Amino acid sequence: MKNNIIEPVLLLDEEKVRRNIRRMKHRAEEAECMLRPHFKTHQSHLVGKWCRDEGIEAITVSSLGMAEYFAAAGWKDILIAFPVNVRQLPALHLLAEKLDHLILMVEHADTVEALHSSGLIVDVVIEVDTGSNRTGVSYNRPEQLQWLVEKVEAAANLTLAGIYSHAGHTYGSRSYEEVLHIGGMALDRLIDVAKKINKPALPLYFGDTPYASIGKNLRQISVMTPGNFVFYDSMQVVIGSCEAVDIAVCLACPVVSLKPERLELAVHAGAVHLSKDNMDSIGFGTVVRFTSEGWSKPLEGCYVRAISQEHGILRMSPEEMGKWTIGDMIGILPIHSCLTAEGMGGYETLKGERVDHYRRE
Amino acid sequence: MKNNIIEPVLLLDEEKVRRNIRRMKHRAEEAECMLRPHFKTHQSHLVGKWCRDEGIEAITVSSLGMAEYFAAAGWKDILIAFPVNVRQLPALHLLAEKLDHLILMVEHADTVEALHSSGLIVDVVIEVDTGSNRTGVSYNRPEQLQWLVEKVEAAANLTLAGIYSHAGHTYGSRSYEEVLHIGGMALDRLIDVAKKINKPALPLYFGDTPYASIGKNLRQISVMTPGNFVFYDSMQVVIGSCEAVDIAVCLACPVVSLKPERLELAVHAGAVHLSKDNMDSIGFGTVVRFTSEGWSKPLEGCYVRAISQEHGILRMSPEEMGKWTIGDMIGILPIHSCLTAEGMGGYETLKGERVDHYRRE
Repeated sequence: MKNNIIEPVLLLDEEKVRRNIRRMKHRAEEAECMLRPHFKTHQSHLVGKWCRDEGIEAITVSSLGMAEYFAAAGWKDILIAFPVNVRQLPALHLLAEKLDHLILMVEHADTVEALHSSGLIVDVVIEVDTGSNRTGVSYNRPEQLQWLVEKVEAAANLTLAGIYSHAGHTYGSRSYEEVLHIGGMALDRLIDVAKKINKPALPLYFGDTPYASIGKNLRQISVMTPGNFVFYDSMQVVIGSCEAVDIAVCLACPVVSLKPERLELAVHAGAVHLSKDNMDSIGFGTVVRFTSEGWSKPLEGCYVRAISQEHGILRMSPEEMGKWTIGDMIGILPIHSCLTAEGMGGYETLKGERVDHYRRE
Repeated sequence: MKNNIIEPVLLLDEEKVRRNIRRMKHRAEEAECMLRPHFKTHQSHLVGKWCRDEGIEAITVSSLGMAEYFAAAGWKDILIAFPVNVRQLPALHLLAEKLDHLILMVEHADTVEALHSSGLIVDVVIEVDTGSNRTGVSYNRPEQLQWLVEKVEAAANLTLAGIYSHAGHTYGSRSYEEVLHIGGMALDRLIDVAKKINKPALPLYFGDTPYASIGKNLRQISVMTPGNFVFYDSMQVVIGSCEAVDIAVCLACPVVSLKPERLELAVHAGAVHLSKDNMDSIGFGTVVRFTSEGWSKPLEGCYVRAISQEHGILRMSPEEMGKWTIGDMIGILPIHSCLTAEGMGGYETLKGERVDHYRRE
């Protein structure tokens, strides 16, 4: 590790990112469904450019601020996949003027009313909750969905572009089979509810990273919006969406203490860097060693046991424990790359170039 | 709530912050111990100024970057309460030149060696682990502490300023009595290990927010370094360190969906705003209503049940559910104000003034 890296840095392996994008683009093409990747994971102009290099022109984001960030970089076709915040209607008008195609998300009649009254001419998708229990009209309330569809269709300034579901509950999966089962069930619910409201041809927006990566029925999807796949992370390995070698970001962090009696290392890398997401089996992330080409596969039996604001405590295997000294840089493959990227607010490629990340005001 | 607030904003009640600072200063004065507050919670020049208004001249931070941020605002006496990162020795030399008094933390012989070799003339505290299992020499290894003390004393450029312990495990407390018990035990261990190495007069640095707020034996402490007390948060209420009325920060967030059938609201406020810290009883934070003076006490039976990257799902009481509409701003008293402040990267006072927060590069 270069001597000029003296504090936590989020390293980005451009080759892996490009490979992940190409692979997902290929899956979408094979299934004849559109890939509208979710840029909330990387939030980066440069990584966006790498997507554009693969022919991607339409994107998804999760906030107005993020949409403005990408509009400023020349993106013209943006879906904001978050229920419209009616306090932002004036700002959404301004955004729409800059784009060729803006799609907003609605899932409540009051929001449709407000959008209608605002006069904004815009496409909308209606969010359907297929089991995640977050936002969206529940899949088992087709009468509510029908009512919302009619409200949108009755508003002269709104065009219904489809129904959208984020099956966030696939993140609870712990295996390839479980992703296929839970994700497949969510997709079936989306297809089913479209039939129940007599709109079987309505475009279906579906496909978070687990299902988009390994799902079997992509042909039934019109538009996929996975985000995490550009980087993947240790959670996605456990879920079964990818292999550890696909993980394209790694937090480099300085070793500041050795606790051989507990088989632990302390590093400068805490909640502000990694986020506090965690999983029983691998804590807050898995551990790697840096190599001349990037980083190794995860070191067996090593993981981030605990974090506080700035500290990370790494549980090490007896074999690995003796190999590390104070001042070394050690790598963590984050448990949730979206949140680590957000916390770090930027990246560095393996060649040492700084890479941008959107920052909220 | 003012119409110009259209997205999540971290509101700061200056009066409460000033009261919290005054109260802690008073406790320290009564116990004749020095208050060297930890600025990692607010990371703000303006909040720092409010501390200075109460006569505080010496501070604690948890990274070199944060130390540089406060040095730039004129702070001259800084303790970096994180084990020295030896990769940063050249930068620490530069920092020391800007200050009247820099104190560094060590807890491993290799780090003491590296500091010695660097020639930096500096005070150091040795960290003692009194039960938190994070960093520091374990309190039940006095021989190791003794050896480290001797190493520091033998290094002509290093001056031993004391022994330091952060009893982070008091955060596991769930009551006033438990804080007193766990914190008191940790303090006893620190006193005890100083006696065991025949240094009973060594200054003791001790006192995280729970113990500094309600502990009984502050007289035995030389220097207290609590941080969270300037803001407190919902976790500190559960722990018993403060009352809900003492919480000085509140995340204002727009209501984007209503789910009366589940007694839930959805808001724009997720992991990127609040952080993913959580507690069984109150999830990711408690819920308040805004008033003309600030915000109400926590709404009974209401809390943040779930969050994802940008979404927050609030569980509401049957009484409260019907009172909210889409487009309202609702308040969340964060579970962990340090991490919420870090995520938000800035504040707004109740008068509408922007307040700075250090941002890592």
